[in-house]
Amino acid sequence: MSWIYFLDLFGTGVFAISGVLTAIEKRFDLVGSLVIGFVTAIGGGTIRDLLIGRFPVGWLTDRSYFVVILIAYMIAYFLRTYIVKFRKSMFLFDTVGIGLFTILGIRISMSYNINIENCLILGVVSACFGGVIRDVLTNEVPLIFRKEIYATACIIGGATYLALRHFHVQEDASIISSIGIVILIRYFAIKNAWSLNFHKQSYG
Amino acid sequence: MSWIYFLDLFGTGVFAISGVLTAIEKRFDLVGSLVIGFVTAIGGGTIRDLLIGRFPVGWLTDRSYFVVILIAYMIAYFLRTYIVKFRKSMFLFDTVGIGLFTILGIRISMSYNINIENCLILGVVSACFGGVIRDVLTNEVPLIFRKEIYATACIIGGATYLALRHFHVQEDASIISSIGIVILIRYFAIKNAWSLNFHKQSYG
Amino acid sequence: MSWIYFLDLFGTGVFAISGVLTAIEKRFDLVGSLVIGFVTAIGGGTIRDLLIGRFPVGWLTDRSYFVVILIAYMIAYFLRTYIVKFRKSMFLFDTVGIGLFTILGIRISMSYNINIENCLILGVVSACFGGVIRDVLTNEVPLIFRKEIYATACIIGGATYLALRHFHVQEDASIISSIGIVILIRYFAIKNAWSLNFHKQSYG
Repeated sequence: MSWIYFLDLFGTGVFAISGVLTAIEKRFDLVGSLVIGFVTAIGGGTIRDLLIGRFPVGWLTDRSYFVVILIAYMIAYFLRTYIVKFRKSMFLFDTVGIGLFTILGIRISMSYNINIENCLILGVVSACFGGVIRDVLTNEVPLIFRKEIYATACIIGGATYLALRHFHVQEDASIISSIGIVILIRYFAIKNAWSLNFHKQSYG
Repeated sequence: MSWIYFLDLFGTGVFAISGVLTAIEKRFDLVGSLVIGFVTAIGGGTIRDLLIGRFPVGWLTDRSYFVVILIAYMIAYFLRTYIVKFRKSMFLFDTVGIGLFTILGIRISMSYNINIENCLILGVVSACFGGVIRDVLTNEVPLIFRKEIYATACIIGGATYLALRHFHVQEDASIISSIGIVILIRYFAIKNAWSLNFHKQSYG
Repeated sequence: MSWIYFLDLFGTGVFAISGVLTAIEKRFDLVGSLVIGFVTAIGGGTIRDLLIGRFPVGWLTDRSYFVVILIAYMIAYFLRTYIVKFRKSMFLFDTVGIGLFTILGIRISMSYNINIENCLILGVVSACFGGVIRDVLTNEVPLIFRKEIYATACIIGGATYLALRHFHVQEDASIISSIGIVILIRYFAIKNAWSLNFHKQSYG
């Protein structure tokens, strides 16, 4: 299981970097950027843990999250001109992060005897609500409600994982395939500027 | 007790519809509207459950909430031009919802040995904070702080329930009377454009 | 220990007053101001309690918080023209409040076996996140992310407390010294208009 743990920390770091970069753009001070990086990285998992009653919440029990976020914060600050050049890699890393967070969220919820559709919801919450808290704290309408099919990718990826699990597909293969689905959906979404906007659907 | 359970689900559906309609107005996409409908419907009860330590929170333990919200979401999307015509009925339904949520919130809190004034607070939180979360996520100043005596109606309705209970009035009668009080207050508030605004009080 | 309990209630009252004054400035109604006063006063401690799993959260188990907030609310309403004249005293009271809330947050977290750096984080959360919730609910970008070295003072004060504790300094002396540090930092910060803003650093 250690590759999952490694990817979890990696995703945490990537989320933290994206939060810090947003905060710098908004001209937050050093402490403000650290706080935004922190809540972006651990916000989704924290809300999931609160809802299912897992205490203390995950990041409080394992020092590694704190360390990873601190390193990510320093990387974001000192290398931000470089990071902006690697937008495509960041996009890929971020997508791996949301895919994995969705699956991990589902797995943790299942171990708390939550019924299956709520596990899917909690998976999506784990992946998306860090970003929602970031946007609320920076006084923006949360991005996931407007621009991208961010949440949709999580829902489909999560449903894929639940389906593969139902058919007893080997665990690691299920996780990797589901994350693959999330990456594919976001890739095509960006490529074709898909969005599930009801009001300005373009059939063309 | 089954009529209470039925009304609870009904209130959940009405809150979800109001959330989805707000999201559509704000041009949120399909997933965004669903999320807003969801948090509007279950947000207040979720915060109450978190504060008193009731885990997993209510809607995670009973599939019906998920199903009702999904149906409400589809109703809101497909029938929204009709719903807007029935504003008056929606207003009545919504008021029944907040009245009942206040009473249910108080009852649940009492079963957790919370002292009586905090039970009243938790009742109001149950009824109002779904709307507060909706407004925060759509980047609005929460409506309950400005326009209506929404929260006041809940406080008075909740206090009525606690008083009737104190005098051992039969439970169903207490609940119905208290909800009736909430409906009356909001009805007269709208009728006379009451508001508890300290700055522009009109004595006329 | 009773002087700590007294200061805790005092800090709660000061935070409530600052919340109510903000709400009045924003033209919230009577109920809205009460809600803002309430969440400003108990918001930080509530989030800390949720994260470590302390249920029901603190203010629900002790009537005094409710009473203090109600009194603070009335003071804020009836004496607001006077309070505004005593801005300097309010500033001192507020700083004592955040200093004490940081230390109390750390102490409570330590009793839940949280590791030391997370205790520091939880201390800062206890002191600062009431204000963050206030700002989110009034649709402002949270003050602590932009203007003052509010959070920084808490971090340094909290670290001081942890250091003194590590060297077995007597408890009351540690608490008083740490709060003193917080007061000094904020005093000099205001005096010299320090801020940790990365973008507009002035070396002068």
